[in-house]
Amino acid sequence: MATITEISPLAPPNGFPQLPVIKGVRFAVAQAGVKYANRTDVMLAVLDPGSTVSGVFTKSATRSANVLDCQNKISAHTDEGAAIIVNSGNSNAFTGRAGDVSVKALCEAVAQQTGLPEARVFTSSTGVIGERLPHDKIISKVGELTQALDERHLEAAAQAIMTTDTFSKGASTTIETPEGVINISGIAKGSGMIAPDMATMLVYLFSDAKISQELLQEMVSKASDETFNCITVDSDTSTSDTLIMGTTGQSDSSEITKGSANAAAFYQGLRDVMLELAHLVVRDGEGAQKFVEVNVTGATTDQDARKVASAIANSPLVKTAIAGEDPNWGRVVMAVGKSGAAADRDLLSIWFGTVLVAEKGWVAESYKEEDAAAHMKGQELTIRVDLGLGDGKSTMWTCDLTHGYISINADYRS
Amino acid sequence: MATITEISPLAPPNGFPQLPVIKGVRFAVAQAGVKYANRTDVMLAVLDPGSTVSGVFTKSATRSANVLDCQNKISAHTDEGAAIIVNSGNSNAFTGRAGDVSVKALCEAVAQQTGLPEARVFTSSTGVIGERLPHDKIISKVGELTQALDERHLEAAAQAIMTTDTFSKGASTTIETPEGVINISGIAKGSGMIAPDMATMLVYLFSDAKISQELLQEMVSKASDETFNCITVDSDTSTSDTLIMGTTGQSDSSEITKGSANAAAFYQGLRDVMLELAHLVVRDGEGAQKFVEVNVTGATTDQDARKVASAIANSPLVKTAIAGEDPNWGRVVMAVGKSGAAADRDLLSIWFGTVLVAEKGWVAESYKEEDAAAHMKGQELTIRVDLGLGDGKSTMWTCDLTHGYISINADYRS
Repeated sequence: MATITEISPLAPPNGFPQLPVIKGVRFAVAQAGVKYANRTDVMLAVLDPGSTVSGVFTKSATRSANVLDCQNKISAHTDEGAAIIVNSGNSNAFTGRAGDVSVKALCEAVAQQTGLPEARVFTSSTGVIGERLPHDKIISKVGELTQALDERHLEAAAQAIMTTDTFSKGASTTIETPEGVINISGIAKGSGMIAPDMATMLVYLFSDAKISQELLQEMVSKASDETFNCITVDSDTSTSDTLIMGTTGQSDSSEITKGSANAAAFYQGLRDVMLELAHLVVRDGEGAQKFVEVNVTGATTDQDARKVASAIANSPLVKTAIAGEDPNWGRVVMAVGKSGAAADRDLLSIWFGTVLVAEKGWVAESYKEEDAAAHMKGQELTIRVDLGLGDGKSTMWTCDLTHGYISINADYRS
Repeated sequence: MATITEISPLAPPNGFPQLPVIKGVRFAVAQAGVKYANRTDVMLAVLDPGSTVSGVFTKSATRSANVLDCQNKISAHTDEGAAIIVNSGNSNAFTGRAGDVSVKALCEAVAQQTGLPEARVFTSSTGVIGERLPHDKIISKVGELTQALDERHLEAAAQAIMTTDTFSKGASTTIETPEGVINISGIAKGSGMIAPDMATMLVYLFSDAKISQELLQEMVSKASDETFNCITVDSDTSTSDTLIMGTTGQSDSSEITKGSANAAAFYQGLRDVMLELAHLVVRDGEGAQKFVEVNVTGATTDQDARKVASAIANSPLVKTAIAGEDPNWGRVVMAVGKSGAAADRDLLSIWFGTVLVAEKGWVAESYKEEDAAAHMKGQELTIRVDLGLGDGKSTMWTCDLTHGYISINADYRS
């Protein structure tokens, strides 16, 4: 694996945020030496009895043994508590029967040490595909992990799950309700193999909200589609993408019920935290130098708008132009054309930032290249396309495609 | 535009091939100074009366004025002869009404000088999108071009249509029939914005075959789908892709009729020439250092096989691994998983060259990384995937993703 020493220039300037403690969930980390030396590579989270767990997973046909196991367990309605164990350095994907054996062994060990049933132990693995997971190394640390559990160790957990990430990622929000506040804290990892249908991303969210598993699952699925499924780094989709959310119900606030004002506020807060984490993943995109929002409006349908946004956000030619700070809007036109969405050359308008670049099938009369070039020099860019056909809209977030991406990925395993 | 001085390492060692003269079609080139200095940038081809013209064009929703005009004209059944005029340096795409005006002006000028009806004049433009085509510069050369027409100037034509190409591309074949030989000669340009549904590619094919426009169009469409639509450099699709084939009917051979032995032989020859040109385009892929054949078998359907081949051939992570000579088959597994095709982890087999890498859901027992690594060091690679599900198959050709691609495209317009 290439050693990544430099922190992404798009990382938050103030580092990892202060995350509120979520009552009822505790964390611990350890150095198991799965692949990396001299760093933590395992995290354990344990949720108190009374908690619920929801999740969203990759749709890849070659998804990992861990993902398959989590999917089988996620919708159980039980309040026995739960545990999540995550390792970095090895994805346990495409390891055949041995992969299933590793997951089973991890779950057994965690169940034994925590007193939880195996059906309430969730696992994730991230890293290289196709190498046997040395699960014994992890299992030998489970006792130590269980002893070290502490509500305040979420930041350490965010560090332990990193692979090619150049910074650890966290976000939180606090929702005020008449009876008391509800907290949501989340962490994520991911920086390559990032594309809709989830990414090479692991995301763990925790809240003290009182909410049923069914309603939370519904919210998590919807918010995931509006956040994590709207980012792309390189159009590649991982075999291990996992988002798990646990809620402990230990806030003073009353239960969140479907259609209530609390439900709306909670959903908004949840979506905000997920969007912030999704943006952090893009900001750590392999080799990224620029953070790019792609805004598409005026499509025939939202689905068409998403096709166009995705074609722009995934186009190597658009992304290399951004890397070169070149307002090459012709490549945006190309991407619109290839997207498969309904489009009319003469109704299309394109903006870089607030600079109208093209309209009525051609470069805008008011356009001066130096204006767009000035926008392209920034670190935070917006490309906006209006198709002029209807009300369909979509927003996606991506980064540029640079020499850094090639350097990292042409040498990942060496 | 970045200056590309080095010839692709994948270029044919013997340079441009000797192409047979096609009786009844003549070529000329000129320096019009559309964008480039000190090189030819316009070619004119004129086909004798009695010729037919067929073609295949980009499906982009933002295709150029030239493409739209060609599409309107291509299926006319007339034997008045035809002309094709092509410029490099400016694509005349997304130039609004001005683009249509340029095409009309070019067609009028060529019609006037050649005596052909405007409806028989086809135009192509390739280069930067969104800048007004200085058609007067080209028109001022049409008289000179018409005077210089010569059957032997096809190689010069291949040079005049180049943009970021590092070598000119030609291929030919000769088909023996009882009554005499039929010749096919073709040229192509293209090296970036290359993906199925045609590429940023211009292809011109000529033959002395006697064949109806309808039958030739049918053959050209089919062969195009099996050749040019099976290559990808960067998954981006151009607004200008054009393939035009003219046949003069001046061979001694008898007319090619549907279902005849001559038709089968002619189709095979035509497909061979198109495949050779398609491969040459990949060999000139921007920044390419390796030529890669992706072979997929055992899919539920041919369509599914194509999805898998395309997901592998377009994956930035697979292509950077190839650039790094890393037999990272985990990324192939990832691409299979994300393709959307039916796949079963445990039935999947993967080979790099002749080295069996993975089978039964995991790395093959016989696998030694040094064997695969040795294959990856070559310039001509094969990735083979068998899905173990059915008889569906597909082959695609691509190249690696290197620092060269970023260098060329992060600075294309400067």
